[in-house]
Amino acid sequence: MRVEIWSDIACPWCYVGKARFERALETFPHRDGIEVVHRSFELDPGRAKDDIQPVIPMLTKKYGISEAQAQAGEENLGAQAAAEGLDYRTHDRDHGNTFDMHRLLHLAKERGRQDELIQTFYRANFAEERSVFGDDERLVELAVSAGLAEDEVREVLADPSAYADVVRADEREAAELGANGVPFFVLDRKYGVSGAQPAEVFTQALEQAWASHSPLKLVQPAGQDGAEACGPDGCAVPHRH
Amino acid sequence: MRVEIWSDIACPWCYVGKARFERALETFPHRDGIEVVHRSFELDPGRAKDDIQPVIPMLTKKYGISEAQAQAGEENLGAQAAAEGLDYRTHDRDHGNTFDMHRLLHLAKERGRQDELIQTFYRANFAEERSVFGDDERLVELAVSAGLAEDEVREVLADPSAYADVVRADEREAAELGANGVPFFVLDRKYGVSGAQPAEVFTQALEQAWASHSPLKLVQPAGQDGAEACGPDGCAVPHRH
Repeated sequence: MRVEIWSDIACPWCYVGKARFERALETFPHRDGIEVVHRSFELDPGRAKDDIQPVIPMLTKKYGISEAQAQAGEENLGAQAAAEGLDYRTHDRDHGNTFDMHRLLHLAKERGRQDELIQTFYRANFAEERSVFGDDERLVELAVSAGLAEDEVREVLADPSAYADVVRADEREAAELGANGVPFFVLDRKYGVSGAQPAEVFTQALEQAWASHSPLKLVQPAGQDGAEACGPDGCAVPHRH
Repeated sequence: MRVEIWSDIACPWCYVGKARFERALETFPHRDGIEVVHRSFELDPGRAKDDIQPVIPMLTKKYGISEAQAQAGEENLGAQAAAEGLDYRTHDRDHGNTFDMHRLLHLAKERGRQDELIQTFYRANFAEERSVFGDDERLVELAVSAGLAEDEVREVLADPSAYADVVRADEREAAELGANGVPFFVLDRKYGVSGAQPAEVFTQALEQAWASHSPLKLVQPAGQDGAEACGPDGCAVPHRH
């Protein structure tokens, strides 16, 4: 059964929510039957690639709140992250465009390294000093540390169209599913969890989705053996009664 | 609602089945709400790229049937194709490895040209004289005629790893869904249609899947307004009652 997680690297609740979901998944009895796929959602898609801002002034300006209020929000996030065993720098974090990271996450998906890469990006953005924004060499270093081939990473970064359509398609799909914020979890395309809910909510969602998950119902004419189909053993014409 | 079609270019029933499905889709009242995605399934994945064989001798050898029996099968396929308005060469068609075509179909998916490309490949393989096998220039020509950029097509053909994992992932997923032959249609991940069924069966499957299609059920704690999530308007902390 598939769980899709729409998120953004620049979204602190996505960082925290992923850990809460994983805590639920760890104790879920059917966890080996769960495939997790990360999908793209940009919080700030209109921001230029070279428009990088420290988080606190960005927040005070964007929402007309005081620096102390913005800082309090960061402290709260830091505490929530710590409760999940995650490091979180509550000072001097940057905000920027995440499009290139999303494109790399789709390369990583093809290479079976998507979860490693998103975790690496989260950690770098929320816990490490060196900014992930406006620094392609930093992205190369992080992607290689997550197991990607350097030449492939450089190729994707050098070609702004690589995986761009897939990122956009993910974003369209999020809108179609009714997500207007992230993290947004979709279980078996049937159940949704919006936000960094407590682990118990994820456990409940996993249980409900698993219980209602069923194999495909085949639609076919009555009294038919087989179908006009081709398989490894050739192309068959069915016998109809 | 999404309809996924697993198929192979070398599969004549896929060519015919696609047309039957499309006939059903044309008259389906909610057709504008249906997204069709083509997925990869190789009938003969072990065949070397340069191992190209005329279809009739391949069939007689593989299944121990006579040339007349093999030819009768082709005539039947030709008649079924004609009934759908499709051209079909019942003589001198080749059989070969389709991996590169599947890789190109995934490029085409990213570029919004997948349906055009699969139809172009089918037509070339089943109705046109020049073989689609063992001839990269032929694939370039076909892909460009379906609206892809020549340099991108050449890049994918030159790099055997491009989209290779996506093809394999599609094939694994087909096995997980219980498909052992193609065409295999999956509607909303809930209903399946195996083989080139009559258009009425597709109509019935579309109706059933559409009727049971429902928006995501949100799982959330009682008495919660909102969630710990980030959206275009910032990162919120929910108000709990």
